[in-house]
Amino acid sequence: MTTSSVRVAITGAAGHIGYALVFQIAKGNMFGPHTKVHLQLIELEPQLPALAGVKMELEDCGFPLLESVTCTADLSVGFAEADWALLVGAVPRKQGMERSDLLKINGGIFTEQGRVIDAVAKPTVQVLVVGNPCNTNALIAQQSVQRVDPQRFYAMTLLDQHRAVGQLATKAGVTAADVEGCVIWGNHSATQFPDIAAATIKLQPARAVIQDDAWLETTFLQNVQQRGAHIIQARGLSSAASAANAVVDTVAACSGLWGDRVFSLACTSDGAYGVDAGLVFSFPCRYEDGKVVIVPGYTQDDYGQGLFMKTLEELRAERDAVSALGLI
Amino acid sequence: MTTSSVRVAITGAAGHIGYALVFQIAKGNMFGPHTKVHLQLIELEPQLPALAGVKMELEDCGFPLLESVTCTADLSVGFAEADWALLVGAVPRKQGMERSDLLKINGGIFTEQGRVIDAVAKPTVQVLVVGNPCNTNALIAQQSVQRVDPQRFYAMTLLDQHRAVGQLATKAGVTAADVEGCVIWGNHSATQFPDIAAATIKLQPARAVIQDDAWLETTFLQNVQQRGAHIIQARGLSSAASAANAVVDTVAACSGLWGDRVFSLACTSDGAYGVDAGLVFSFPCRYEDGKVVIVPGYTQDDYGQGLFMKTLEELRAERDAVSALGLI
Repeated sequence: MTTSSVRVAITGAAGHIGYALVFQIAKGNMFGPHTKVHLQLIELEPQLPALAGVKMELEDCGFPLLESVTCTADLSVGFAEADWALLVGAVPRKQGMERSDLLKINGGIFTEQGRVIDAVAKPTVQVLVVGNPCNTNALIAQQSVQRVDPQRFYAMTLLDQHRAVGQLATKAGVTAADVEGCVIWGNHSATQFPDIAAATIKLQPARAVIQDDAWLETTFLQNVQQRGAHIIQARGLSSAASAANAVVDTVAACSGLWGDRVFSLACTSDGAYGVDAGLVFSFPCRYEDGKVVIVPGYTQDDYGQGLFMKTLEELRAERDAVSALGLI
Repeated sequence: MTTSSVRVAITGAAGHIGYALVFQIAKGNMFGPHTKVHLQLIELEPQLPALAGVKMELEDCGFPLLESVTCTADLSVGFAEADWALLVGAVPRKQGMERSDLLKINGGIFTEQGRVIDAVAKPTVQVLVVGNPCNTNALIAQQSVQRVDPQRFYAMTLLDQHRAVGQLATKAGVTAADVEGCVIWGNHSATQFPDIAAATIKLQPARAVIQDDAWLETTFLQNVQQRGAHIIQARGLSSAASAANAVVDTVAACSGLWGDRVFSLACTSDGAYGVDAGLVFSFPCRYEDGKVVIVPGYTQDDYGQGLFMKTLEELRAERDAVSALGLI
C-alpha cells in the first residue's frame, strides 16, 4: 500500500554520486516500499544534456514508486516544495587553489542554495550536505534561513561510520552486521575521529575482540581518515556508490526508518559534549519523537579526548575562516 | 530474519553496468531483505586494481546482508558454487570490426564461460547473459554444458520491456506503475518487437488509451528499439544504471520475488509460438512451481506477425553465422 509521497531535490544529480544515488531513491531504498517519490534533479546549465540522459534511464526502470522527474538548472524550480534537499554538488579543490579560494567559491554556492531553499522548499524541509567541505558548507547554507529551522541542516558522516565498521569487520573476520556502536565525531575530513570506545563486535567490546591497540590507534585510524584517497588510488575515481549508499542510509535514518538505532550525523551543536553551540559537528544521533536528536552519555579517555579536540579545533578554524570571508 | 544465502558471480564487475549492479545485490534489492549474498566478482587481469576499489566501496556500505566479496580473473574461482552467473562483460564492437569478428571473439569468451560454469557452479545454477549480442552469447554459452540444464541460460530483455513501459507511460501522462502487459519478443537488438497488443494503461487497453496508431507503429517502436543509442547520445556513456536495474528485476522475477507477474526474458525455445526449438528468444515468461516458464496464449495481428518474423529471422541468421564459425 502506498501511503504518501516525498519530494527530493538533488544538486549535482548528473555527477558520479548523483548518478549512483537517484536510482536508489526511485527504487524505494531511501523512503521504503510504500512512499512515492518526486525527483527534482538540479545541475549546472552545461550538465543539463547529461542530466536528460539520467532522466531517460530513470524512465527505463519501470519504478512503481517514481511519480515524476524534473530536470533544471534553476534552483527555485529544483527546490520547490522539497521535503529533502540533498546538496551533493560542490566545486572540488583544484591544483593551485588556495583553501580560502575553495571556501569562497563553495561559500557563494551554499549561501545561495540556503537562501533559495528557505524561500521555496517546504517549511519542514531537511537538508543534507554531501559536497565538501560538507560541515562548513552546511554551516554556511543555514545562515540564510529565516523560515526553515537551521537545525534541519546536516552534513554527512555516515559514510565514515560505514568505513570504520568495514575496517573493524575485515580485521575481525566478521561481517558489517556483527559490528555495532561505532561513532564518528567532528569534521568529515582527515581529522575525523572514528570512535570505537562503545563499539561491539558480536556483542563483545571491539577493543577486546581486536586485541591490537597499536592497529586501532594507527592503521585503523588512518584507513578510515584516508579512505577517500585510497579509493581514488584504486579506482581512479572518487567514491560514488558507497557515498550514495550513505546518503540513502542517512536520510532513511533521519526519517525514522532505522528506528532508534544510533547513527553518525553532523548536525548543529547545542553545546553537547562541549562543542561550541552552532558548529556543524558529527555526533551520535538518533530519531526520536519525529526528529533527530544528539545522543548523550558517550565518554572519552585521554586518547579519545585528544582526537576529539583536534577535529573540534579544525572545525573552529574553518568557521573562523568563513567568518573572516563574511560568509557567516 | 535471514533465512538463506546466495552466491552470485558477475563478469565485467568493474565496468559501468557491473559497478551499478553489485551494490544493488549487496543491498538486498535482488534477493530480498532476508537472503545473505556472497559476491564473486570477475574481471580481466588489467581491471583487477579497479575491481579492488569496487570491493573497498562494498566494504564501506555497512550492508548487513553481504557475507563475502571475492575478486578474481580466474573463472574457476569466480564461478565456483555459484547460484547465479551474471555474464555482464563482453567485447563491444569497435570501429572497423566485422560482425563475424565480433561473434568470433565473444563466441570464444562465452564458450569458455559456459564450460567453466558447467564444471564448477552449482548444478542448479542459473545464468543471465547481459553482454551483447546477448541472445546469441547465451546460445553459445549453453552449448558447453553437460551437467547444468541448458534451459537455465537466459538473455536479458526486461530492460527493453521497461523502456517500452516508460515510453507508453510518458505518452499517456501516467507512471510506470499504471502500465501492464507489455511484452518483448525476439532479439535484444534493433529488431526486437515491443508488443502492446495485450498491454493496458490504468487497466484500459493501451491502444485505446493512446489513440495514436501512427505513433505506436513508428515513434514508439523506434524509441524502444533505438533507446540504447539515444542514451549514449545524451549521456556520452551507454546505459548502466537502467541496465543494472533490469538485471536486478530479472533475477528477482526468475527467483519468484515477482510472484506470477509476467516478464520478458530471452530463454531457450521449446517450439512455443513457432520459434525454432533451441533458439534463445524473448518470450513472456512467468515463475511457476519453482521455475521459469513461457506463458502461452498471446496472439498477433498481421502487423505484429510481421515484426515477430523479422526478429525471428535475425536470430536464425545469428545462429547460422555462429554455427558456420563452429561455435555451436
